[in-house]
This record gives sequence, structure tokens and C-alpha cells, in this order.
Amino acid sequence: MAGTDHNKPQLTGGPAIVLVEPQLGENIGTAARAMLNCGLDDLRLVRPRDGWPNPKAVNAASGADSVLGKARLYPDLRAAIADLRHVYAATARDRYMVKRAVIPRLAAAEMRGYLAADEPCGVVFGPERTGLVNDDIALADTVLTVPLNPGFSSLNLAQAVLIVGYEWFIAREEPAAEFLHIGHSRPANKDELVRFFDHFEEALVDSGFIRHPDKRPSLFRNLRNFFQRASPTEQELRTLHGVVTSFMGPRAKPGRDRGESE
Amino acid sequence: MAGTDHNKPQLTGGPAIVLVEPQLGENIGTAARAMLNCGLDDLRLVRPRDGWPNPKAVNAASGADSVLGKARLYPDLRAAIADLRHVYAATARDRYMVKRAVIPRLAAAEMRGYLAADEPCGVVFGPERTGLVNDDIALADTVLTVPLNPGFSSLNLAQAVLIVGYEWFIAREEPAAEFLHIGHSRPANKDELVRFFDHFEEALVDSGFIRHPDKRPSLFRNLRNFFQRASPTEQELRTLHGVVTSFMGPRAKPGRDRGESE
Repeated sequence: MAGTDHNKPQLTGGPAIVLVEPQLGENIGTAARAMLNCGLDDLRLVRPRDGWPNPKAVNAASGADSVLGKARLYPDLRAAIADLRHVYAATARDRYMVKRAVIPRLAAAEMRGYLAADEPCGVVFGPERTGLVNDDIALADTVLTVPLNPGFSSLNLAQAVLIVGYEWFIAREEPAAEFLHIGHSRPANKDELVRFFDHFEEALVDSGFIRHPDKRPSLFRNLRNFFQRASPTEQELRTLHGVVTSFMGPRAKPGRDRGESE
Repeated sequence: MAGTDHNKPQLTGGPAIVLVEPQLGENIGTAARAMLNCGLDDLRLVRPRDGWPNPKAVNAASGADSVLGKARLYPDLRAAIADLRHVYAATARDRYMVKRAVIPRLAAAEMRGYLAADEPCGVVFGPERTGLVNDDIALADTVLTVPLNPGFSSLNLAQAVLIVGYEWFIAREEPAAEFLHIGHSRPANKDELVRFFDHFEEALVDSGFIRHPDKRPSLFRNLRNFFQRASPTEQELRTLHGVVTSFMGPRAKPGRDRGESE
């Protein structure tokens, strides 16, 4: 990285920035500007409220049109992060989840290491007023929290993106951390992980393990957070799929059992 | 610093944030919000374009009214920094001055050290579109530049304040650097320094050293930058005043000489 050419953008690719249900086009634009300030250009939008493209985003981007032009639309967070191996969820609040949390400086160093090892990663930001819902946070490996005045810590969307991007940019000259993966497998990506969640959770429902549907969402979130923390490899997920299939295999589903017996 | 009380602001005082000729009230408000995010509350305004107080600033501050309420107005930068001993000038551009420059992370560590030693300090930001003029930069010890994408490095005012404040906030748990001052004097504050500049420059004009008035501004800036770099003590400035007075003392002023001889 030259780092001294003042005539053209030094885009590095860098981590994906995923905005979940952004409300105002202006905020998408100012977030894109903050991204380009920091050499980031992989913008992913999940269900922007006012549709896409959005002329208000262009006006607010102050010249960061290249980022907006490359932005990709997704129907849900799961699709937006399918190709990523490491996902951070930006949130200011403590959600009382059992979940690893880091500050942006550590996240930046980790992401430099991931990308140096060709492991795609990204940071997910929630809607302006409400932030990420717990189900979205459960899809992330790690919570990312900006340490600020505890009594006044609320940042707007572009400012949160800027702090994360700034730390990413400034970490560029530090040596990439080494990440060793043992064995012949590789870390699973999020698509593989969520496919396992689907299989596992469907099996749990079918098995009759969860009798009260009201309890499912929080139980599933807790299980997802647990499996996220283990950072499974692709090989391990295949094994886990086999375990679930094996458990469910020969017997008829409980629901059908009841149906047939009545 | 407790750092864990989520119910009230943890204001630390911290460095002064000086906004020179801010144009839009909104930007003063968002800058105040960024300050409070980072535990800063010493806001100083030099000739805000639309007067003060400004209701648009309050609207944009999103609750950081306490910072706006304490903000102080000044007629010029010199007055705004009179009580400070260490001043940073935030600017993205290279002004071709012989001047020390630092990134926000180093500035934050330095300011933690200064304040731990009871040496007031501050960061000066220029008007939104044009930035600081060279004469204002010449009043600062050090240039502060946010390292960003060289091809797209322009930040808005609140974002620049946020990055500086964020680094200040995050440096809070690092040990304060030690700053040793030798002898019985103390570092001069900016008021003392600028009084010396006035004396010195008046003497230069009176002495006939600068025959072409057009050349004065840049020469004076260069001299100011030179004396800033030396970080004079209060005792040294008194000595320098004496030197200037001694040089100029007994003889009549050249202008008067010419007047009398004609």
C-alpha cells in the first residue's frame, strides 16, 4: 500500500459494511462517505426502508458515489453475510447474551488478520433508532461496541461506521496477526453455519423437544450463540449435520405420530 | 473514573474544542454531541457566522445541551486559546509550514499527559469548507491530521471532532505520560506567547527590517512557527521581551527618523 498518493482513492476492499433496514437515504449516503474516507467499498444493504437506489443517498454521499454504485441489496441479514466467515454486530447496548465482545481497535486488528488469510469478514449495523434485533446479533460471532461516555454513548449511523472504518484504516501498517487453522478443513462460512442452524432447529421442533412455541425464539438464539462461539469448521458442520440426521433418521416425526394415532 | 455507570454522563473536562468561524448551527450542534460522546465539555466558539446562541445547534445536538450551554464566545482565536499551553490545529492539508504534525492517537496520549500535569490544551478546527487559515495554524504548536484514504479524506466538522474525541476517550486508561520541565519556570501559555509575538513583530516593523509590507504576513507566520516549535517557558519569554526592548530601546524609531529628517 503506497499510502502517500494524494491524487486517487486507495481502496483496499476491506471488511463488508452491512446496514440492516436503514431508514433514511441520507444516512446511507453519509455512511458510504465514511466508508470511502476509510478505504472501504463493500456496502451491503438489507431491506432499506425507502428502496434502492435512493437519490437522497447520492446527495449525502458527497462524492462517494463509487461506494453507492457498488452497493448490493439483500432480502435478509442471512443472505447478506452468507459468504463471510467472521461477522461483528455493532451494538451499544448490553443484550445479556453470552457472546464475545470487542472494541473497534481489536476488531480492526482481527479483521486485518482475517483478510490477510483470505477469510472474508464484515460488520453489521442496525436501523438508526432501534439498532440490531437480537436475532440478527445471534448471527454474528462477536459484538462490536464503541467505548464512549457511558452516559451519552449514542452515535448516528455514519459516525459508528466512521469509527469502525477509521480503526480499520489506521491498523493498516501493523503486521497482520497470524491465524492458524489446524487440519485439512477450513472455517465454515455463515451460509454453511445457518444451514446447519436450520437443520438443527427443524429437527428440534420435529422431535417435540420444544413443546411451547413461545420458548423457541430465545432457545434458538441461545443455541446459535453457542455454536457461533465454537467457530466450527466446514468439516465439523458436516459431522454435526450427520449427528442430527442420525438422531432423527429412522423414526417417524412426533407430529405425524400423533396425527396417525388419532 | 468509574467508567461503568450507565445512568449519567462521565464528563472529564478534557481538552478544549475550539471552532473557528463555524458556518452552520447544525454543525456546532453535532460537534457538541460528538464532544459529549467522548466526555468533552469545553466548547469555544470564535465568531460563529449565524451568531450565538443558535436554536439550530440545540436541535442538532441531540441532547448535548449541557455542552452548548457552557460554550464560550471569543472575538478571535488568540483570545480563545489565551489560557492554553498546548494547541493543536486540525487540518487535512499540507500547508508547507515547518511545523510538527501528529495523528489523533498521539495527540490524545500527549493531551492526557498535559492535563495530568495541569497544562491546559485544546484542538482548533476551522470553518467547514475552507478549514483553518495559515495565520490561525501559526498560533498552534502542532498540526493534527486524521490519517484517512488519501484520495478521499475530507471529514465533516462533527466527524473530525468525533475522531479526535474518540482517541482522547479511548486513551483514558493508558498511563499518563510524564512531562519533565527543568528549572523554576513553567511553559508559557498562548497569551504570553502571542504578547511576545506582538512585541517582536512591532519591533521588526519599527526597526525597518521589513521594507515591503506585502512580505510581512508570511515572514511573521514563519517566525511564529519557529518560536512555537521551541515551546518557550514563561521565563524565556521574559528574557526575549528584554532582548527586543534592549535592541529597540535607546534609538529613535526609523519611521520617526525619516519623518524628522524630511
